[in-house]
Amino acid sequence: MGSYIHAGGKIGVLVEINCESDFVARTPIFQQLCHDIAMHIAALDPRYVRREEVTPEMLEKEREIYSAQARATGKPDAVIEKIVNGKMEKFYEENCLYEQHYIKDESVTIGEMISQAIVKLGENMGIRRFVRFKVGEVSASASSSSDNGTAPASA
Amino acid sequence: MGSYIHAGGKIGVLVEINCESDFVARTPIFQQLCHDIAMHIAALDPRYVRREEVTPEMLEKEREIYSAQARATGKPDAVIEKIVNGKMEKFYEENCLYEQHYIKDESVTIGEMISQAIVKLGENMGIRRFVRFKVGEVSASASSSSDNGTAPASA
Repeated sequence: MGSYIHAGGKIGVLVEINCESDFVARTPIFQQLCHDIAMHIAALDPRYVRREEVTPEMLEKEREIYSAQARATGKPDAVIEKIVNGKMEKFYEENCLYEQHYIKDESVTIGEMISQAIVKLGENMGIRRFVRFKVGEVSASASSSSDNGTAPASA
Repeated sequence: MGSYIHAGGKIGVLVEINCESDFVARTPIFQQLCHDIAMHIAALDPRYVRREEVTPEMLEKEREIYSAQARATGKPDAVIEKIVNGKMEKFYEENCLYEQHYIKDESVTIGEMISQAIVKLGENMGIRRFVRFKVGEVSASASSSSDNGTAPASA
């Protein structure tokens, strides 16, 4: 479990990261990871944990917008399809926590940071859910992953 | 904004408390208040910020349960009504953050702690929303108050 409150208290984040043992959950490496990811969420405001959470309706809507834009170029269908697929990948990268590039080191995605931590700590782990409160906003952005690849243990 | 992560990281809480100025939001008294209330939420797991948030359906359901219990005693209607009203007050006290007794000092409710802070800091404030994550649970308990009696400023 990690939390981060942005300077001045305008943005707060709570993130649940599951690992397999209390031992790992208590390590400074794991706790730093939780803190770093909470801080990242405060800064980049992702909408989902993983791409699997994007609803079919949302996917359809995005795809339609990109298709219309691509068709307006008058390019052949095969090219349009490629453009749309590329834009969908960009959408995932911008909105899904696992695919976002880490705010403090753009060379890695959050998913890669998790993978590195799994190797380093020798235990499976996954981001389960987060919530981000911004003072003044009407509703929180929150997301939870139903399949985190690890049994809920402690974080 | 306050957060609290319970020892071992099994429970995490994020709470948004609004006041009127950044100046007050940065005071140690306000920050301690946010922390204390987050810790309280971790311990007592309230379901709502205020009684006004309890839905009519939920109220109806609770009232029916208490009525059935009271009627089973065979007492007169006027007494039953009193018993039911008393149990509803108890329900609010157990489930609404503002009406819960502070875990570290049962002589005050959370609402009274807020009132005392308003007097001490000379500024209106209110608890807007919170979320509580517990490792292993399916969905978070979260609540937000639409009427916090103060313009969203900073917390």
